[in-house]
Amino acid sequence: MQPTHGGNLRWAAAIAGISEADILDFSASINPLGTPPSAIAAIQSHLGDLQHYPDPQYIALRQAIAKFHQISPDLILTGNGVSELLTWVGRDLGKLAATVLFTPAFADYYRALKAFDAKVEPYPLIGNLIENSSKNKNLKQNSKETLDFLIQQTQQVQNSNQKGILINNPHNPTGYLFSKDALLPYLDQFALVVIDEAFMDFLPPSQQQSLIDLVPFYPNLVILRSLTKFYSLPGLRLGYAIAHPDLLKQWQQWRDPWSVNSLAVAAGIAILEDRKFQQQTWDWLSLARPQLWDGLNELKGLDPLMGAANYLLVRTDYSGLELQQKLLRSDRILIRDCLSFAELGDHYFRVAVRLKWENSKLINGLSQIIDSYN
Amino acid sequence: MQPTHGGNLRWAAAIAGISEADILDFSASINPLGTPPSAIAAIQSHLGDLQHYPDPQYIALRQAIAKFHQISPDLILTGNGVSELLTWVGRDLGKLAATVLFTPAFADYYRALKAFDAKVEPYPLIGNLIENSSKNKNLKQNSKETLDFLIQQTQQVQNSNQKGILINNPHNPTGYLFSKDALLPYLDQFALVVIDEAFMDFLPPSQQQSLIDLVPFYPNLVILRSLTKFYSLPGLRLGYAIAHPDLLKQWQQWRDPWSVNSLAVAAGIAILEDRKFQQQTWDWLSLARPQLWDGLNELKGLDPLMGAANYLLVRTDYSGLELQQKLLRSDRILIRDCLSFAELGDHYFRVAVRLKWENSKLINGLSQIIDSYN
Repeated sequence: MQPTHGGNLRWAAAIAGISEADILDFSASINPLGTPPSAIAAIQSHLGDLQHYPDPQYIALRQAIAKFHQISPDLILTGNGVSELLTWVGRDLGKLAATVLFTPAFADYYRALKAFDAKVEPYPLIGNLIENSSKNKNLKQNSKETLDFLIQQTQQVQNSNQKGILINNPHNPTGYLFSKDALLPYLDQFALVVIDEAFMDFLPPSQQQSLIDLVPFYPNLVILRSLTKFYSLPGLRLGYAIAHPDLLKQWQQWRDPWSVNSLAVAAGIAILEDRKFQQQTWDWLSLARPQLWDGLNELKGLDPLMGAANYLLVRTDYSGLELQQKLLRSDRILIRDCLSFAELGDHYFRVAVRLKWENSKLINGLSQIIDSYN
Repeated sequence: MQPTHGGNLRWAAAIAGISEADILDFSASINPLGTPPSAIAAIQSHLGDLQHYPDPQYIALRQAIAKFHQISPDLILTGNGVSELLTWVGRDLGKLAATVLFTPAFADYYRALKAFDAKVEPYPLIGNLIENSSKNKNLKQNSKETLDFLIQQTQQVQNSNQKGILINNPHNPTGYLFSKDALLPYLDQFALVVIDEAFMDFLPPSQQQSLIDLVPFYPNLVILRSLTKFYSLPGLRLGYAIAHPDLLKQWQQWRDPWSVNSLAVAAGIAILEDRKFQQQTWDWLSLARPQLWDGLNELKGLDPLMGAANYLLVRTDYSGLELQQKLLRSDRILIRDCLSFAELGDHYFRVAVRLKWENSKLINGLSQIIDSYN
C-alpha cells in the first residue's frame, strides 16, 4: 500500500528490499544537517523528567518561544506537532461558511478540515501558474505574477467575512513565498486567517515574511510554526500556534492537557537558543538549493520550480512514480511522488534540499534513468 | 493558582519554596519504582529515530501491544496518552443522548465530554457509599455492597440503548474494582461502553478484571489503557485503545497521523517485554498498599478506603487542603487534594502508594500534624 505521507520509510525500504536506515530520504523536507547536538544533550539530561507529568501550562517552553519571537507567552499554545494544532484550527474553520485553500495543499489540511465538516473552496496555484505561464507547462517563470493573480482572485471571494482562509507560507509543495504585504488585506477580509509557517524558519530572518508580529492586532489571525523540520526532530512532535488568547484557551478546553511530551519541552527550549545551528542551516541552504535546482534544470524533461524553502517541486515528462521506484532500486534514494496532491498527479515530484554530495547523488541517479529513456 | 491536576509539581514547589526535584510526590499515581532501565535504554538507543516521522500506522508498537494482550493488532490504536484518546471517545459519546458517569470522576473525563457537548448523567459512588454504609461517613465498609447497589441503579437507566457509559476500572479516586461479571450486562444495555483501565495493570494478572478479551465480540466496547503510570513515564505520553476497527479508523481520520512520538514507540515496545519489572511492581504493591492503609487507618480522624490500585482515597475530619499545605512545608510531601472532584471537596485527599520508607514518612508527617490538632 502506498503511504499517504512521504516520510514513510518503512514502505520504501520494503520496496527496495533494504533497511530503512540505508535509504537516502529526499521525500521528507527535514534539515539534512541532522538533529542539533544541543537537542540531543537536552533530551539526555532530562530523561528524569519522564517520571512526572508535563506542566499543563507549559510555562517554560512558552517563555522560550516568546523570547525567541519577542512576543507575549499569552499568545502561544504549544502542540504535539503542527498537525495536532491543525485539528483544532479545523474545528474553528468548520464553523465558518467555507475555507479558502490554495491548492495543491498538504494532505493533512484536508484531514483536519474534513474532521469537522469544513467546506473547502479551492484556489489552484498550479493551475493558475501553468495557465498564466508564457511557456505552457513550464514552471520556470515569474512566480510573483502567479501569486499576484491568485491574490487578485481571492480578493473577490463572495461573503468572505463569513469564511476562513488557510495558507501555507512558504507554500508546500511549490515553495512559493507570499509577501507579508500581499497577505495583509486578508486580515480585514476573512473571518479567520490561518498561516501555516512550518517552513518559514528555513529563510534567514531578513527574508522571512512572517505575520507573527501582527497577532496582537488581529484576533482573527492564527500562525502555526513547527520546531521539527528545521531542527530535524519530526519523531519528537513539537509545534506551536501564535494567536489571540481567547482562541488558544478554547483549544485548550477541547484537547487533552498534556499534549507535548517532556523531552520535546526540553529540546524545544534548547534549540531555540542554538544560534549556531540556525546560522549553519541558513548558510547550507543558500548554497545547496541553487546547486540542486541547477542540476535538476539541466536534466532533459525535468522542470524544477525555484522555491523559498528547503524543497523543490519538479514537473517531469516521465512518470514520477516510475522515477521514484527506479531511484529506490538503483540508488536507495526516496523522492516524494505527488499523488497525494490531487492537482499534481504523476507528472510531478518533490525533493528535499539535502547536503551537496547527496544532491549530486540524486542528480546523477536521475540523469542515468533519464539517459536510459532517451 | 491551584492547578487542576495533582501532578503539578511546579505549583507545589513554589508554595514550599523548594525545587520540584525535592518534593516527595504522593499526588500523582505513578509507580515509585521509577522508569524501568529497559525504557531508558530503548529511548537512548533510538534517539536517531527522531530524524524521521513516526510510522503513521505504528505497526511495530501495535504488534507489541497485540502480543502482550494476545489479541489482533487491528483492534489497537495508540495515542498520545490516554487523554488524547479520551478526546475522540468524548466525540463519539457526544453523539449519544447522554453518558452515564460514576462520580466522582477523573476531571479529564469532563473535559473530553464537554468538548463535544456530551450530556453527563452522574451516578454517585461516594454518595451511595456513604448513604449505604452502616457507619455514617465511614468508608471502611464492604465496597462490594456499594458497587452492587450502583450497578443495580444503572441497570434501570432509561433509554440506555441510546446512551453511553464511561467507567474507570479500577475507579479513580476510590480504587474500587468492578468485577468483569458486574460489567458484562452493560455491553447489551448501552450503545457505547468505555472502560478506562488506566490502572488495571497494577493488579497481578490473576486479579485483573479487564474486558479486553470481549472486544472482538462487542463493537460497542472501548477499552483504554495507559503505559505511563505503571512504567513511570507520564512525561513521555503513551496510551492505547482497544476497540472495533471501524471505531478506531474513524478516530484516525479525525486526529493527526503522528500522535505518538518515536521515543514513546521505542519505550513502549521495550517495557511490554519487561516481565521482571512487572513482577517487581506487583510484589512491591502487594506489601506497600496494606502497610500504607494500616498506617493511615491508625491515625485519628482519617478514614482510608481500601482500593485495588496504587492509590488510596482518604476521608479526613480535617481540611484536606490544610493537610496538603502543612505536609508540603513540614516534610516536602505533596498529597492530592480532592477539590477537582466536585463530589468530594475538602474532606478527602488521595495518596499514591509509594515505597515503604516513603509511606512511613507520609504517615509520620500526618501523625505530627494530627497530634498538633488534638
